[in-house]
Amino acid sequence: MPKTLVAVTRPQLSPTPRSTIKRGKKRAVTGRAALDAILDAGIICHLSVVVDGSPLVLPTGYGRDGETLYLHGSTGALSLRSALANEICVAVTLLDGIVYARSVFHFSANYRSAVIHGPARLVESTEERLHGLRVLTEHMAPGSWEHCRQPNPKELAKTTVLALSLDEAAVKVRSGGPGDEPEDVFEDSAWAGVLPLTQQWGSPVPSDDLSAGWEIPAHVRDRSASHG
Amino acid sequence: MPKTLVAVTRPQLSPTPRSTIKRGKKRAVTGRAALDAILDAGIICHLSVVVDGSPLVLPTGYGRDGETLYLHGSTGALSLRSALANEICVAVTLLDGIVYARSVFHFSANYRSAVIHGPARLVESTEERLHGLRVLTEHMAPGSWEHCRQPNPKELAKTTVLALSLDEAAVKVRSGGPGDEPEDVFEDSAWAGVLPLTQQWGSPVPSDDLSAGWEIPAHVRDRSASHG
Repeated sequence: MPKTLVAVTRPQLSPTPRSTIKRGKKRAVTGRAALDAILDAGIICHLSVVVDGSPLVLPTGYGRDGETLYLHGSTGALSLRSALANEICVAVTLLDGIVYARSVFHFSANYRSAVIHGPARLVESTEERLHGLRVLTEHMAPGSWEHCRQPNPKELAKTTVLALSLDEAAVKVRSGGPGDEPEDVFEDSAWAGVLPLTQQWGSPVPSDDLSAGWEIPAHVRDRSASHG
Repeated sequence: MPKTLVAVTRPQLSPTPRSTIKRGKKRAVTGRAALDAILDAGIICHLSVVVDGSPLVLPTGYGRDGETLYLHGSTGALSLRSALANEICVAVTLLDGIVYARSVFHFSANYRSAVIHGPARLVESTEERLHGLRVLTEHMAPGSWEHCRQPNPKELAKTTVLALSLDEAAVKVRSGGPGDEPEDVFEDSAWAGVLPLTQQWGSPVPSDDLSAGWEIPAHVRDRSASHG
């Protein structure tokens, strides 16, 4: 039977009709800690905006600081300009496995997902722009902000930073085996179970133009040894 | 320097202004074979629809048959009802690694992504509905359609099947090391390279209620031994 992780902390999520999960309610999770855990475990998000009345969805980086999700991109990017003209929606999804059922109808996926709605705020002050870029960089590549050259004014001018509040979010988590019909379990004519899926970091590949003598720095080496 | 896979086959992609890639042109790939390869390698997609003028993006399953992408869901799902009221956008993204640069500005990700635009078509004939569900099932869990009990009329009535043409699609591929500024390469004050990321299937976990005596069937066992 399908099992669901339910974590409840305060503040509660889902304060609006559209972020209240209607389908698959038993997979809805109402805890703020669950939202943070998914956002911290994800690597990229999918950003959706409306362009000329039609949706556009693109993969992009993100970073979380408390109640705020930061996004960034090139100043000229259509997706970021459109993000400021309408509300946006961001999904972070971790796929944990495929659920094999006795019947095709009950095939499913084990996953953790967060979907966040809201108006994007253009980050304008240099201080918060640098803060947002630091949060984004440290999410994408922990330890890199201090290790690397930080943005200069020319680079900053080419970069748009957006902030999205985490106030309006929906979290869904599915785990465990299939939810087959009793008669199919009795019939026993198909295998049932879960094929887990994990992400794994590989060994660091130094850039072709990296000078000899560099060892892999600790922040890269330690991540390489961890799960993705 | 960043390297880009460019595969060109016919028919060409990107026949419309909105699916013509403007940002990151050097990462745009115009081949139909590249699109098919990404769709076949992905496991889930992100489906974006417009609801009350705002975007909604959700993870979901899909399957490809030739020029058609099939999607499905519960008959009552808001996302699928909205999909028929407006155009939709579907993204399939494979994240291949994080690109560590000497400067924060040049951090990037290696990835393969396909973004498809168009009107969704409600699949109405029982024959094509079953075909679409077969394509979806075989994408999600190859070998399962024949192994399992196929949908009965009651299950079919609960399921909406949508078809999306692959005519309007954009493919982006980034691979290789960072594109640092020459002065940062000369400065040599930070490590630069790629931390690869892969997906890996785990060992099959039989369902708690599976009867004793089942061996793992070949279609599950073989997938478990392959890369995700």
